Amino acid sequence: MLSFVNDYSEGAHEKILQKLLEINKTPMPGYGVDSYSSSAKQKIRDACNCPEAEVFFLIGGTQTNQIVINALTAQYQGVVAVDTGHIAVHEAGAIEFTGHKVLTVPSHEGKMAPEDLSKLLTTFYNDANREHMVYPGMVYISHPTEYGTLYTRQELKDLYAICSQYHMPLYLDGARLGYALACPQSDLTLQDIAAYTDAFYIGGTKCGALFGEAVVFTKHNAPKHFSTQIKQHGALLAKGWLLGLQFDTLFTDNLYLEISKNAIASAHQLREAFRAKGYRFYIDSPTNQLFIVLENSQMESLSESVQFSFWEQLDENHTVVRFATSWATSKADVQKLIELL
Amino acid sequence: MLSFVNDYSEGAHEKILQKLLEINKTPMPGYGVDSYSSSAKQKIRDACNCPEAEVFFLIGGTQTNQIVINALTAQYQGVVAVDTGHIAVHEAGAIEFTGHKVLTVPSHEGKMAPEDLSKLLTTFYNDANREHMVYPGMVYISHPTEYGTLYTRQELKDLYAICSQYHMPLYLDGARLGYALACPQSDLTLQDIAAYTDAFYIGGTKCGALFGEAVVFTKHNAPKHFSTQIKQHGALLAKGWLLGLQFDTLFTDNLYLEISKNAIASAHQLREAFRAKGYRFYIDSPTNQLFIVLENSQMESLSESVQFSFWEQLDENHTVVRFATSWATSKADVQKLIELL
Amino acid sequence: MLSFVNDYSEGAHEKILQKLLEINKTPMPGYGVDSYSSSAKQKIRDACNCPEAEVFFLIGGTQTNQIVINALTAQYQGVVAVDTGHIAVHEAGAIEFTGHKVLTVPSHEGKMAPEDLSKLLTTFYNDANREHMVYPGMVYISHPTEYGTLYTRQELKDLYAICSQYHMPLYLDGARLGYALACPQSDLTLQDIAAYTDAFYIGGTKCGALFGEAVVFTKHNAPKHFSTQIKQHGALLAKGWLLGLQFDTLFTDNLYLEISKNAIASAHQLREAFRAKGYRFYIDSPTNQLFIVLENSQMESLSESVQFSFWEQLDENHTVVRFATSWATSKADVQKLIELL
Amino acid sequence: MLSFVNDYSEGAHEKILQKLLEINKTPMPGYGVDSYSSSAKQKIRDACNCPEAEVFFLIGGTQTNQIVINALTAQYQGVVAVDTGHIAVHEAGAIEFTGHKVLTVPSHEGKMAPEDLSKLLTTFYNDANREHMVYPGMVYISHPTEYGTLYTRQELKDLYAICSQYHMPLYLDGARLGYALACPQSDLTLQDIAAYTDAFYIGGTKCGALFGEAVVFTKHNAPKHFSTQIKQHGALLAKGWLLGLQFDTLFTDNLYLEISKNAIASAHQLREAFRAKGYRFYIDSPTNQLFIVLENSQMESLSESVQFSFWEQLDENHTVVRFATSWATSKADVQKLIELL
Repeated sequence: MLSFVNDYSEGAHEKILQKLLEINKTPMPGYGVDSYSSSAKQKIRDACNCPEAEVFFLIGGTQTNQIVINALTAQYQGVVAVDTGHIAVHEAGAIEFTGHKVLTVPSHEGKMAPEDLSKLLTTFYNDANREHMVYPGMVYISHPTEYGTLYTRQELKDLYAICSQYHMPLYLDGARLGYALACPQSDLTLQDIAAYTDAFYIGGTKCGALFGEAVVFTKHNAPKHFSTQIKQHGALLAKGWLLGLQFDTLFTDNLYLEISKNAIASAHQLREAFRAKGYRFYIDSPTNQLFIVLENSQMESLSESVQFSFWEQLDENHTVVRFATSWATSKADVQKLIELL
Repeated sequence: MLSFVNDYSEGAHEKILQKLLEINKTPMPGYGVDSYSSSAKQKIRDACNCPEAEVFFLIGGTQTNQIVINALTAQYQGVVAVDTGHIAVHEAGAIEFTGHKVLTVPSHEGKMAPEDLSKLLTTFYNDANREHMVYPGMVYISHPTEYGTLYTRQELKDLYAICSQYHMPLYLDGARLGYALACPQSDLTLQDIAAYTDAFYIGGTKCGALFGEAVVFTKHNAPKHFSTQIKQHGALLAKGWLLGLQFDTLFTDNLYLEISKNAIASAHQLREAFRAKGYRFYIDSPTNQLFIVLENSQMESLSESVQFSFWEQLDENHTVVRFATSWATSKADVQKLIELL
Repeated sequence: MLSFVNDYSEGAHEKILQKLLEINKTPMPGYGVDSYSSSAKQKIRDACNCPEAEVFFLIGGTQTNQIVINALTAQYQGVVAVDTGHIAVHEAGAIEFTGHKVLTVPSHEGKMAPEDLSKLLTTFYNDANREHMVYPGMVYISHPTEYGTLYTRQELKDLYAICSQYHMPLYLDGARLGYALACPQSDLTLQDIAAYTDAFYIGGTKCGALFGEAVVFTKHNAPKHFSTQIKQHGALLAKGWLLGLQFDTLFTDNLYLEISKNAIASAHQLREAFRAKGYRFYIDSPTNQLFIVLENSQMESLSESVQFSFWEQLDENHTVVRFATSWATSKADVQKLIELL
Repeated sequence: MLSFVNDYSEGAHEKILQKLLEINKTPMPGYGVDSYSSSAKQKIRDACNCPEAEVFFLIGGTQTNQIVINALTAQYQGVVAVDTGHIAVHEAGAIEFTGHKVLTVPSHEGKMAPEDLSKLLTTFYNDANREHMVYPGMVYISHPTEYGTLYTRQELKDLYAICSQYHMPLYLDGARLGYALACPQSDLTLQDIAAYTDAFYIGGTKCGALFGEAVVFTKHNAPKHFSTQIKQHGALLAKGWLLGLQFDTLFTDNLYLEISKNAIASAHQLREAFRAKGYRFYIDSPTNQLFIVLENSQMESLSESVQFSFWEQLDENHTVVRFATSWATSKADVQKLIELL
């Protein structure tokens, strides 16, 4: 059966596996103080054009969000996100588990509007009872968003300006960052992201790695004893070089960007096909996730030959589903899907 | 200056202070195992017509909400409340501090609609990704609500039926419970509340006590080692008899209800006066809080002679303010305020 | 029956109750922004000879320890205490509840030895694996200790010097501080304590108040938005003026010290009597708690006429018990107990 | 340079890597609902002779301990461990981070003595103040211990009997379980461990896997919605099949035990060599970790050609160091080390 169910169904890019095989029996120091991790960090600093960036490797996205948010907020502070944000909905309360409230503003196709953020802050700081409320301590956005949409350079700058004014770190969840960077419509580079955020992570799990996310603190703002905090959260990988090696490979010869382009090209081809066949789009997303409205009968018949994700029930007769491509999507599968439509 | 700013501005009913003076030098056992506490608990059980009720005394409302919610939810569960609920807005994240998310449904003048609760639960249990989401583990309502409104007996029964169906405790915040019980429009008795909730608290702080709230677990469901949990939250009062004595006094000869009537009668008198003078009501609340829309100039002039609470900015020229009466409001002050209007 | 069971059996000094009666019906602003609280804070600053001290009022000791320790430590840090310290043993895990480990050093009759603290720190900072361990982030001592013993001025200075060297706040639990200050053997004044700690609290619950503890941050180091943090812990008293009024009274005309002297004089008289009758002391404590070794039969017979605390089983035939005096102990009761011995 | 520094320096057994290569591009369902995970779980149930066992896969040891302990204890409970236990010392406070105190008993070469556990429990339940103390809610042991020592079958049965009597789950940390099972001196089988514990984990990270630990709940006692709890802790691996595949391979044809034997044989050979050359043993440990006392000069000279772990400073002139073997230790390296001695 064809699979467009998500972008973490396959293993890793073959260069990563090759490297893994090569050094499998070479003894490596534990907990991320190995040479692959050092090299990967330097390559990421270079790619970000941010020589002072402090880079850490973690295993998964929810883990990364939990630890970074917990470390960057004071205990009485919450984190602002859109109401469709991953931390607000799909992390099983991992943020609240560490004592922090997720404060929400309305989602605009997955994105946060600078004016909504401003309004929340103005309202909060004008409220005479704010001492009895959760202080907005940082801002969380995802890029691409959970709906595959993208911030423009100007939008990111605007959000960052507000955050700076209020001394709140701006943190960007880049679980699918490769697919944003590889998207021709985007005017936002990795260097821009390093410039206009305080912290972000470069997603590996969904973009070519077996697992792994690279957290980048861009403004000399890595939390004190961050390794200890990672350990305290149960998130310090004994064989940390597994993470270093993967990111070292992905940031050699621009591999991260190159393989991400495949997802974008495949999605583009599918998007055109869906459009040509008259399918209705639920949202206009330029990256590797396509949200399509299907009639229920159509959905059932399609699901016999291809896997996709249920997104939400639109009305009695229609359902929103998601088709996701990835670095691993083959031209053959794209072709087969197009034929099915 | 006149004060209608809130219902916790004064000390305690004089009978409480008398009692305090009487036993001031009598040695009492610590931590709530004294005879006043026992007696108060029995009187509360009687008043609730719930012989098996387990009663505990705590100091304040946020503390009570935090401890009860934390004790009644599993760690991966959240608590459902309306978006204007005290725990959602004005407790500085006390619930999240203990690891639990507050899941919100829309407020209807402060109240939770049974259909909104049903919809949240249906949606949740139909969501294929619910394992990645916060489980709704209990329901929080307040009565009177933060807007002074009241649930009917049928509404409470309906909410309780849904909660029972989903095996979720229904918990009622009765910070101002006296003012609900004393309200002639209400068809909901203390016995009803004991019958149609799993836990609730009888507010003392705002209804005649110096401080103190009586938590009632109605269904043999007091959390195990609850005293230890109270201690662990830093909430176990050394001189627990201070709480016992106050509630023993309030639940002797129906004092709690009797003194609450004063607040309702005073509010009624004010309500009629506001209405007669053509003031605009923001919300139609039958208890001790009146929400009035004032022109800004009117607000400024009034504030020279009487204290009230700013509630929210309605538009550029109008502000919602709150006038609160209490067990301690004097007829003279009510009269003076009416003259000012 | 005579009661020497503890020092929190009685209510409050009569001047406090008088004051309470006087202002009972005067409307007061909530949450501690009232004039009594301001006045009490200034009197405490004066008594500490520490004009820049920041003072906050809380309700009980465990609550105070939990909030102060939580606010003064980073999340990955623990607090160092002696293994008999209140936070290590008798607070039901209130410190761990907020995520912080209590790191212990051996107790010397309840006291922390500077050399033990030094050794813990040296060992920690020499440990190559310290990134996988809990960082010692602050130091907790009690004065008087849980065994009624006292630090000398030099000992406190020594502990403070070590803490300063390692940039760790030194925090002193003064649940019974009055009884330390009133003890003629002590060379440690309130001003010294303000000088040689970073934070401490002045116990009210056990020294003349109905309840209440005054936290003093001595070095411009009050945690940011500390009121919000107090609220977040469920510890913000609505009628905060109850706390202000009590401390204002206790710090007027030296009342706090004066009434504490009664406990010390009573304990002295009892100590002499125990000694004269040949009783064995478990520990040589100069304050208001006497730890006596009784034969079990002796204990049983005494317990028919006087209440005291079981402390620990010494051996099969002997038990350590505690007799506590307080500000409220009457000369008559002391005399009666002496006759019983 | 030779490396005997630890047992997590190398990658994974080649059969795991082969399997990884084979299925790298095959789309797999996420979050552990794949066929490899199912198959691995069944093989583990079979190996444990425990058909009702519930098996979950996690990534690392500290993470596993944190989640299991948090899920098996009520909030007011702590976990009992020896004072040298991993959770007590080397997990950066990960247990306290989730609100639970680690209650310690003395270590006997890394092991917990049943009589020490009994004494702690008797003392606790005889303490009149136990409501103010942390309830011992479960017991944590490691096998092999942090000092490479092993429990006998009888010792485990004795601990389990005490735990059962007090209704406390007994949990066994098997980070190096393979090396215990492969040790000829041990009379404790995997089936015994399943019978005499309530939960344990089979360590993969140190015994042939890239990473991964298999948690086994043996008594129908898997925590409710455990996947959600894993997610809430940020520990749910998107590509969960990576864990399933590794354990499926390790539990095929007894591979886990077979490769563990290499560590034991290598350690045995080294142990004999150390003994023959007159080296002093710090502790008599039968598994894959050798603790040797070296003169400081000797240590320095050895460290030029071989890596080992510093353990502790014994006295001014002597240091305890650790040599660890693993599934990956080569005969050639063992030979080279012996020649160096």
